[in-house]
Amino acid sequence: MIRFNNDYNHGALPQILEALSSTNDTAFGGYGTDDLSESARKEIKKYLDFPEAQVHFLIGGTQVNYVAIASMLRPFQSVICAESGHINVHETGAVENTGHKIIGLPHVDGKISAAQIEKIAADFEESPVQEHITQPKMVYISQPTEYGTIYSKEELIEISSTCAAHDLYLFVDGARLGYALGSAENDVTLSDLANLTDMFYIGGTKCGALFGEALVITNKELQPNFRSYIKQNGAMLAKGWLLGIQFETMFKDGLYFKTAEQACKWALEIRDAFHKKGIKSYIESPTNQQFFAVTDEVKSKLAENFIFEDEGKTPEGLNIIRFCTSWSTKQEEVDELLKKVGDL
Amino acid sequence: MIRFNNDYNHGALPQILEALSSTNDTAFGGYGTDDLSESARKEIKKYLDFPEAQVHFLIGGTQVNYVAIASMLRPFQSVICAESGHINVHETGAVENTGHKIIGLPHVDGKISAAQIEKIAADFEESPVQEHITQPKMVYISQPTEYGTIYSKEELIEISSTCAAHDLYLFVDGARLGYALGSAENDVTLSDLANLTDMFYIGGTKCGALFGEALVITNKELQPNFRSYIKQNGAMLAKGWLLGIQFETMFKDGLYFKTAEQACKWALEIRDAFHKKGIKSYIESPTNQQFFAVTDEVKSKLAENFIFEDEGKTPEGLNIIRFCTSWSTKQEEVDELLKKVGDL
Amino acid sequence: MIRFNNDYNHGALPQILEALSSTNDTAFGGYGTDDLSESARKEIKKYLDFPEAQVHFLIGGTQVNYVAIASMLRPFQSVICAESGHINVHETGAVENTGHKIIGLPHVDGKISAAQIEKIAADFEESPVQEHITQPKMVYISQPTEYGTIYSKEELIEISSTCAAHDLYLFVDGARLGYALGSAENDVTLSDLANLTDMFYIGGTKCGALFGEALVITNKELQPNFRSYIKQNGAMLAKGWLLGIQFETMFKDGLYFKTAEQACKWALEIRDAFHKKGIKSYIESPTNQQFFAVTDEVKSKLAENFIFEDEGKTPEGLNIIRFCTSWSTKQEEVDELLKKVGDL
Amino acid sequence: MIRFNNDYNHGALPQILEALSSTNDTAFGGYGTDDLSESARKEIKKYLDFPEAQVHFLIGGTQVNYVAIASMLRPFQSVICAESGHINVHETGAVENTGHKIIGLPHVDGKISAAQIEKIAADFEESPVQEHITQPKMVYISQPTEYGTIYSKEELIEISSTCAAHDLYLFVDGARLGYALGSAENDVTLSDLANLTDMFYIGGTKCGALFGEALVITNKELQPNFRSYIKQNGAMLAKGWLLGIQFETMFKDGLYFKTAEQACKWALEIRDAFHKKGIKSYIESPTNQQFFAVTDEVKSKLAENFIFEDEGKTPEGLNIIRFCTSWSTKQEEVDELLKKVGDL
Repeated sequence: MIRFNNDYNHGALPQILEALSSTNDTAFGGYGTDDLSESARKEIKKYLDFPEAQVHFLIGGTQVNYVAIASMLRPFQSVICAESGHINVHETGAVENTGHKIIGLPHVDGKISAAQIEKIAADFEESPVQEHITQPKMVYISQPTEYGTIYSKEELIEISSTCAAHDLYLFVDGARLGYALGSAENDVTLSDLANLTDMFYIGGTKCGALFGEALVITNKELQPNFRSYIKQNGAMLAKGWLLGIQFETMFKDGLYFKTAEQACKWALEIRDAFHKKGIKSYIESPTNQQFFAVTDEVKSKLAENFIFEDEGKTPEGLNIIRFCTSWSTKQEEVDELLKKVGDL
Repeated sequence: MIRFNNDYNHGALPQILEALSSTNDTAFGGYGTDDLSESARKEIKKYLDFPEAQVHFLIGGTQVNYVAIASMLRPFQSVICAESGHINVHETGAVENTGHKIIGLPHVDGKISAAQIEKIAADFEESPVQEHITQPKMVYISQPTEYGTIYSKEELIEISSTCAAHDLYLFVDGARLGYALGSAENDVTLSDLANLTDMFYIGGTKCGALFGEALVITNKELQPNFRSYIKQNGAMLAKGWLLGIQFETMFKDGLYFKTAEQACKWALEIRDAFHKKGIKSYIESPTNQQFFAVTDEVKSKLAENFIFEDEGKTPEGLNIIRFCTSWSTKQEEVDELLKKVGDL
Repeated sequence: MIRFNNDYNHGALPQILEALSSTNDTAFGGYGTDDLSESARKEIKKYLDFPEAQVHFLIGGTQVNYVAIASMLRPFQSVICAESGHINVHETGAVENTGHKIIGLPHVDGKISAAQIEKIAADFEESPVQEHITQPKMVYISQPTEYGTIYSKEELIEISSTCAAHDLYLFVDGARLGYALGSAENDVTLSDLANLTDMFYIGGTKCGALFGEALVITNKELQPNFRSYIKQNGAMLAKGWLLGIQFETMFKDGLYFKTAEQACKWALEIRDAFHKKGIKSYIESPTNQQFFAVTDEVKSKLAENFIFEDEGKTPEGLNIIRFCTSWSTKQEEVDELLKKVGDL
Repeated sequence: MIRFNNDYNHGALPQILEALSSTNDTAFGGYGTDDLSESARKEIKKYLDFPEAQVHFLIGGTQVNYVAIASMLRPFQSVICAESGHINVHETGAVENTGHKIIGLPHVDGKISAAQIEKIAADFEESPVQEHITQPKMVYISQPTEYGTIYSKEELIEISSTCAAHDLYLFVDGARLGYALGSAENDVTLSDLANLTDMFYIGGTKCGALFGEALVITNKELQPNFRSYIKQNGAMLAKGWLLGIQFETMFKDGLYFKTAEQACKWALEIRDAFHKKGIKSYIESPTNQQFFAVTDEVKSKLAENFIFEDEGKTPEGLNIIRFCTSWSTKQEEVDELLKKVGDL
């Protein structure tokens, strides 16, 4: 069985394991204060065009999301996101557990718009009873979204301007950021993200690392004491250099970008193969996640050789299934899938 | 100007002020351990048909809601309610501030159904990834609802059975409970509430007291240490007897019921007067809150003599306005309103 | 039996009940936005010499303490207080429940010193691992303390300067503030408190009101959105004018000060009577709380006619007992106690 | 420079890196549901003599501590520990951030006694005002302690019995558990810990793993839904098998025990070398952490070749320094240190 079910079903890029081995006999200072972490920060900052940015390494996505949000909000403030946002549906109420309400908005293919944000912000500003409701203070979006779609640079600029106009922070969950950056349709760079958001993160776990996410904080108000939030939430790895090694390895020669780009290419090949057979995408995604609407028969056939994700049913009763390529996908796996689809 | 804007715009029933005066020279023990509080508990329990019930006096509605909910839930558990539920829209995220997610459901005139609850509970039970989502553990409803509507005994039994079947607690916000009990359409008694819910409360603030809510806990699991939650949340009045006096006064001769019943009668007279003029109710309510859809002209006319609540617009562009009668409403105020409406 | 056990065993000053009665037929706007609350704020501000101060009315002491502290601190910050501080030992962990550590310091008769605060602040500043410990960000003291002692103006200035030097907020719990202000030894005015602290409150519950505390916020950083904290924590009285009436009544003619001053005088008469009999104070207090160290025999004798507070044992095995005078104490009650002590 | 500063300054046991490499091409299910994690659980359970125990893998010590404590306590409950306890002084108030008070007790060399716990529990039980104070509900101890000392089996039995008698949970922080188990003085087995506590954990990070801690839950009340707490707190590794591999590798052939035992032997050799030179231990520790009280001159000499931890001053003004051996220590490093000490 070949796993196309998600993008975190293998260990790490071989270069990362090599780097871990080659430094295993070296002693380092703890908690991310080591040289390797510093060097990884520098490699990442080369792409940011934002010299004053802080880069922090945390362990996983849910952790980054709730720690970052908790650091940005006061108790009476809330966060705006798509109803389908990861923080709203897949994190066991982690954000609420830190005391904050999530305002879920209807979405189109996982995306929300500047106009929707504008409306929520204006409603609050015009409310005569602001103290009876939570103050929307930040916007959370994912790039790519839960459905693999991506925000264009123009859309991001609009959202960013709206946030600025209403004194809202903008936070971008980049758990799969590599696959957005590697998408043929993408026009948003890391520098754009640094300059248009207050915080965003560059996902490692789903993009080639054993684990780890690189959080970038560009808003100076939000930088002080961030390490206290990390420690308080059990998110500070004692052997912090393990995170440094991984991000240095992925960023120093552009490995992060290359592997994700390849994964996106394969994803589109897979998509085209399905389309050729008259099987429609459930959602049109330009990244590594591809959603198809298939009959029971097709699903059964595919399940003979592949593990993929079950995502419920369409209104018409077709099965929604997700195929993920990733940094760990191999050409022969894709070939086998393409052949299978061709034979459907 | 006559205020029909809400049911908490006057001090208290005169009998309550008299009782406060007559005990002002007496010394009492603190924190609700006094005889008057005990006596008030007994008066209330006469109506409950539930000898093991606990009765606690707290100060206000938002307070009771969040303290009760916090006492019922563990950190990974959530509460189900109508999207329009008071905890979801008027309490500055108090429930989230205690760490819990609210699952808001679409409602019909402020009410949710057993079937909707069943669906949410079943979805969780069938989820293969329960640890990634919050566990729905309780249902919050209001009697009457934010729109003045009430649950019938049959509806309550259905909801209660569904909760029992799925191991959900049922909590009823009774901030305006008097007006449900006093409604001509009502068939739910205090004893029904005691026997069908895990906790519910009997509102004082909006039903004749200066302030105060009587929380009834019938589920034995939820009774121990409840006073610790009260104290920890600043909800324990040092001079607890002030709450005892008020509830004793309202319950010993049925004053609570009589005043609310009269308020409901007036509310229906007002409704009938509007209907007679061809002005429609926005929502059909059998209790003290009446919502009408009126033209700008009618609204202006009414605003010449009355203060009422602005509740936005109908899809057709009419103004939604709310008139509340209450325990403090006077016959002459109602007469004046009826006359005004008649003259429209 | 005559109660000298505490200062919250009676309803309210008769003037307050009269004021409540005289306004009972008037309709008011809700949540503290009414004219009476505004007028009460003005009466209080006459004493503050701080035009930009905000005055908020809350219901009880524990509530003010934890809501104020929660509004001042970020999640990684902690509060410094005496080990005997009310927030540390009598509030069911309310402050920790909002997420903050309390750093309890050894005290002398309930008081802590600027030097102790300086030490804690310096330890943090010099720590090479600040992110592993909480950041002390505020100081909580009570005036008078749990033991009835008071800070002199000089001591307060020292503490205030130390706080300013280390960027710590200073918060004064004034649940019994009247009795500090009314003490013959006191040299601290309300204006001093306004000018030396970031927030402090003027206690009503223990000083003549049915309930209620007036929180004064002078630090402009801490003023915005404070009403959101009040609402979120269930501390916003729907009928806010009830608090306004009470504070207006106590402050417009200086009633607050006069009654507390009389209570302090009586307390010292009682103290002198004990001393005359060779019974020593356990702690020398210049305010309404008097602590004596008495034999079992003396305790039994006193218990024949009086209710007082048991406060444990001295190292020598004597009983520590507390007698409280208050705004509700009557001359004849004091006379009876003086006679009893004289007859010991 | 040779690092003896702590036990987490190197990557991992080489066997662990090999195991990671050898499974890097295999696809696994996520979130700890894989076979390797299951197999690691089985290896650990071989030592527990407690078939119903749950074993969960988390990432780091602070994380395990606060997640475990949050899962055990209700909002009004508190945790008892030594004033020097890691949760009390090195975790940025993580426990308080989840809402719970820590009751810090004076300690002897990092240890607290059953008698101290008994006293706190009895004080609460006898309190007439339990609702005004937090309910002590659990005891947190570390094995070994912050000072390298260990509880004997007899001491653990006493503490466990006291906890049982007062309905307190017992939780043992085993971040360095290997070094307790490997100490020549130790008489406490993993099976003893399983049978005498409600939860305890087996530290990986400081005992040979890249990262990871194995939490054992034996109390059946505390087992349900624990994975929800893990996920909610960002402690669920997406690639959970990485934890499984590490613990399987350390436990299947007793590697965990052997490396720690060797570290303890070296630690005692180092201790003996210091003692021989007339340099006293600051605290007598039988495990891998050794504390010495040295003059400035000695400290400077040692600092020429070694990195060690500065732990402040003795009352007499000597420097307290800590040398840690660990799983990553090498014979030649120890030899060099022994030589240096011999030459002092």
